[in-house]
Amino acid sequence: MSLGEFELIETYFRQESGGMGVAMGIGDDCALLEIPVGQQLAVSMDTLVGDVHFPKNADPELIAERALRVNLSDLAAMGAEPLWFTLGLTLLKADAQWVKAFSQGLFRVAREYGVALVGGDTTRGNLSMTIQVHGAVSPGAALLRGSASPGDQIYVTGALGDGAAALAVIKQELGVGKSAFNYFMDRYYRPQPQVEAGQRLVGLANSAIDISDGLIADLGHICEQSVVGASIHLEQIPLSEPVAKLVSFEQGLEWALSGGDDYQLCFTVSPENVDELEGLVESGKLEAYPIGEITRDQGVACWYKGERVVPSGQGFQHFNPDEQSSGA
Amino acid sequence: MSLGEFELIETYFRQESGGMGVAMGIGDDCALLEIPVGQQLAVSMDTLVGDVHFPKNADPELIAERALRVNLSDLAAMGAEPLWFTLGLTLLKADAQWVKAFSQGLFRVAREYGVALVGGDTTRGNLSMTIQVHGAVSPGAALLRGSASPGDQIYVTGALGDGAAALAVIKQELGVGKSAFNYFMDRYYRPQPQVEAGQRLVGLANSAIDISDGLIADLGHICEQSVVGASIHLEQIPLSEPVAKLVSFEQGLEWALSGGDDYQLCFTVSPENVDELEGLVESGKLEAYPIGEITRDQGVACWYKGERVVPSGQGFQHFNPDEQSSGA
Repeated sequence: MSLGEFELIETYFRQESGGMGVAMGIGDDCALLEIPVGQQLAVSMDTLVGDVHFPKNADPELIAERALRVNLSDLAAMGAEPLWFTLGLTLLKADAQWVKAFSQGLFRVAREYGVALVGGDTTRGNLSMTIQVHGAVSPGAALLRGSASPGDQIYVTGALGDGAAALAVIKQELGVGKSAFNYFMDRYYRPQPQVEAGQRLVGLANSAIDISDGLIADLGHICEQSVVGASIHLEQIPLSEPVAKLVSFEQGLEWALSGGDDYQLCFTVSPENVDELEGLVESGKLEAYPIGEITRDQGVACWYKGERVVPSGQGFQHFNPDEQSSGA
Repeated sequence: MSLGEFELIETYFRQESGGMGVAMGIGDDCALLEIPVGQQLAVSMDTLVGDVHFPKNADPELIAERALRVNLSDLAAMGAEPLWFTLGLTLLKADAQWVKAFSQGLFRVAREYGVALVGGDTTRGNLSMTIQVHGAVSPGAALLRGSASPGDQIYVTGALGDGAAALAVIKQELGVGKSAFNYFMDRYYRPQPQVEAGQRLVGLANSAIDISDGLIADLGHICEQSVVGASIHLEQIPLSEPVAKLVSFEQGLEWALSGGDDYQLCFTVSPENVDELEGLVESGKLEAYPIGEITRDQGVACWYKGERVVPSGQGFQHFNPDEQSSGA
């Protein structure tokens, strides 16, 4: 890009550079960062491509919000405290209004979660962005995918299915009224990374993951990496009020199980910690819904009112033991 | 992407995940990293877009080499020790052979510089890649752009102009024989980030930058951020033998001054440290060529054999004090 375009972009992005532990922010060959003493650094990188992960012509404020929120969800899933982020932004042209709006959305989320922009790159090309988030966590405290144990109770931090429902609204496959439309756009572009919940679960949960690909796929990752299985009770899976109102229970469940983009946490708690967890829930310090148990069998098995079922787009089918048990 | 494609990619990238200070590499929501005790973390992110920063149809091994080498150059410019990197790779399709070759080039460079791949993301879209490098540097030791002082001697770590000459060869603007062709392809795709030189300069140089945009632009960044100026002596600027043989001195200089893609370091040393620096050069521990001095005047002034000149594509023009002095 020409110098003028770079300067334009730097104007907007430099405005809120710096923050806690930032010895050098934007403006040199590297940023220089100070990790809190004795802490591990947790990092995660996600790329969002225009018309693959979001509509290209969407409001740039919302594109930015979604990009940073989705990344922060990975820190939440480790129980890490968010500190900093970097942004690699690729644009067809450096449009001042677009960049200004994008930076406003970005910094709104950055302020909400206390993360500072410390560096990045701006290049010319088809619209896409890569964000890396950086957080801190005590050694040994991070919530991992691979440490669930048979007998653990499985929980999710909130209603599932909204992400997939929102996508159906965006694709005009689901017609809704204005208030539901606003609700789903908010859920799609402004998912709430469960950063506080993740940090509360440190020392309490055995394992955790954020739900980006749907409950069965993501709980499946916990099962594979922990070399365990899971039984989930479909009637216990929380759906949002708008989803429950708009579509059948079966459709809502399908979105919850296979839709993705919910960015709630799925986590497991050993029986001896269940009382402490339920205490946090009762006192309002944590939102969590029990949905099943970790088992010794491999795969994710679904049950509906005590009967083993295989969820599909056509509702629940009776489980046939000759077929594979996982719906993923 | 489908699960199969992801697995294919993970096969190649996971093979060499992990390394020093890596508590958790690829495979969870975040990587968990341990910075050496008492060190600052230096991070830099660069995006390379197909057909903008490299030809899309280039050998994937070389694309990977170039991408990681260019990023490591930013750690070199801070005097930081390379530790880890993350990769956000966007591909139109997950072609097994392409990804395998790409990963081979990537890990060859990673091994050479002792950096471990610790995470990233793979998405579908037009070919581009974002790499973030992570290094360690002692607090207060990093080489910055903003701390040059009037009287500092200015050096570069090696021949300039090869990057621009190589681009001319790639664009078929410059016809060369086979041996020169191989030389320039190597210089373009396998630039040598001056990591060792950068670390040697810690405590010795006042300021440093890597030359990615051409000497005048990059030295200009040192001048702006240090609020100083520079005088450079064009006859002292080192050109490679192939460049000196193939084109006029004026053309070679133009590439050196404005071409970029050289990834040598430009650094400044205060008069009291010059002897120590020259000692390192004489003992073969460092390559460095003196090219000028930091001044109190703003801007980068060029001199040729004692006469003030303004370099241009047509050779040197006599300096006209009514015009601006910088060629950037």
